[in-house]
Amino acid sequence: MPNRTVFFISDGTGITAETFGNAILNQFETTVRRVRLPFLDTADKAHQAVRQINHAADLEGNRPLVFTTVVDMEVLSVFRNECKGVLLDMFGTFIAPLEHELGIKSNHRVGRFSDASQSQAYNDRIEAINFSLAHDDGQSHKDLQGSDVILVGVSRSGKTPTSLYLAMQYGLKASNYPLIPEDFERRQLPPALVPHRKKIFGLTIAPERLSQIRNERRPNSRYAQLENCRMEVSEAEAMMRREGIRWLSTTTKSIEEIATTILQEIRPERLEY
Amino acid sequence: MPNRTVFFISDGTGITAETFGNAILNQFETTVRRVRLPFLDTADKAHQAVRQINHAADLEGNRPLVFTTVVDMEVLSVFRNECKGVLLDMFGTFIAPLEHELGIKSNHRVGRFSDASQSQAYNDRIEAINFSLAHDDGQSHKDLQGSDVILVGVSRSGKTPTSLYLAMQYGLKASNYPLIPEDFERRQLPPALVPHRKKIFGLTIAPERLSQIRNERRPNSRYAQLENCRMEVSEAEAMMRREGIRWLSTTTKSIEEIATTILQEIRPERLEY
Repeated sequence: MPNRTVFFISDGTGITAETFGNAILNQFETTVRRVRLPFLDTADKAHQAVRQINHAADLEGNRPLVFTTVVDMEVLSVFRNECKGVLLDMFGTFIAPLEHELGIKSNHRVGRFSDASQSQAYNDRIEAINFSLAHDDGQSHKDLQGSDVILVGVSRSGKTPTSLYLAMQYGLKASNYPLIPEDFERRQLPPALVPHRKKIFGLTIAPERLSQIRNERRPNSRYAQLENCRMEVSEAEAMMRREGIRWLSTTTKSIEEIATTILQEIRPERLEY
Repeated sequence: MPNRTVFFISDGTGITAETFGNAILNQFETTVRRVRLPFLDTADKAHQAVRQINHAADLEGNRPLVFTTVVDMEVLSVFRNECKGVLLDMFGTFIAPLEHELGIKSNHRVGRFSDASQSQAYNDRIEAINFSLAHDDGQSHKDLQGSDVILVGVSRSGKTPTSLYLAMQYGLKASNYPLIPEDFERRQLPPALVPHRKKIFGLTIAPERLSQIRNERRPNSRYAQLENCRMEVSEAEAMMRREGIRWLSTTTKSIEEIATTILQEIRPERLEY
């Protein structure tokens, strides 16, 4: 049982506080108890949170770590003045030097979204998610030209989660299209894909890992057999090489790493936005 | 055309650097050009990035802002010594005080994922995404008891993107189930849902906004008519009230805000993990 508690404190959702804190905690070989306290947008709620933090401090006999992205000065001062934890204050630390550099004052606005439905970028993101869902697993050839990127690869190579991540995180219309044994026999790209070659990105995977993933879904099937996985992967890689399609292996990579690599390769302008 | 460039610098994907930087930039009413430079894991790549930053500095006549989550000390020192930008250094700033507080050294490990496929949490996340896809829009009653949360609401109230976000971000098995006119006529929850009442969370939406969203998908349909939307929303809210289901209005909320609220209500233990 960890005897140190970490709090993520925010006047918004706390997602940034959590990303910030977890990135830093990941640098330490230590186990902690994590508590997220979102939507602390009044001094009253801050006082309540402080009581919870100070209670943990007394109970555990050491100072809780408190990662905060609170921007409201009244709320923040409650933590600064009364909290027994170690305050790791993202905004307090970086806003002041930036105000100096930019020569303007910050607006202390809470959260990324004021009214999400009014934001074009937000609506584009929702539209991209719907698009990616409708174009999952080769479901629809319609509007394939509306795709920003088309992922190809054998079944269970990681196309679906990557497409959804690209849509959700970057508002990209990401379709995906399976490469199946019929394509390998014909030794040609699926005909629906041919006109969109420039948008295609391939995912491959080590046959051993593929067999393991497929076995979880359809145990002891031919589909999951190592021999069959070896054949499909080798045919798919040969096809991508022949067709000049860029590709990467997802075997040891997270969705985030795959998505970042695809962005670099397919739409570098998305890295400069 | 903005005349200040912001760089997000990382030896990993740069996603944390971008979250960190954008949260802070959002506090300023200013337009900037954004460039993300991921995977800078050698001094060579760092030198190349520094040239790009210094070129922007010379061209624009002011100091680029450089948000960094680089952990490799050799890479970081290239930026510290040679870069003309304003270095906003998340790890450099917060690691040292934490080493002091925790009494241990940080490991300077790059990125959140070493080999994603070996991580149980990562595999759970992928499984949750697959589960949520299979249980989108009431597609499958099977394993509904395997859901962590079941979202209900009228068509286009925000259930699908929220389910996928809960799965992708928190590894929650989130199903969703539409409330349709037949349910309102019967004045009862869809029978498949009744055994799972404790996991149900409702989403509602202002009829005007719903009509606007539906009109984009099926212009001039009865489905999209304001009168029909008013009726469906009012019936759905009456049903949720009658059945004692917790619910919120998604009208002006982002997926992130909706998901955070659901976590607080349905599975508070997820906030303490």
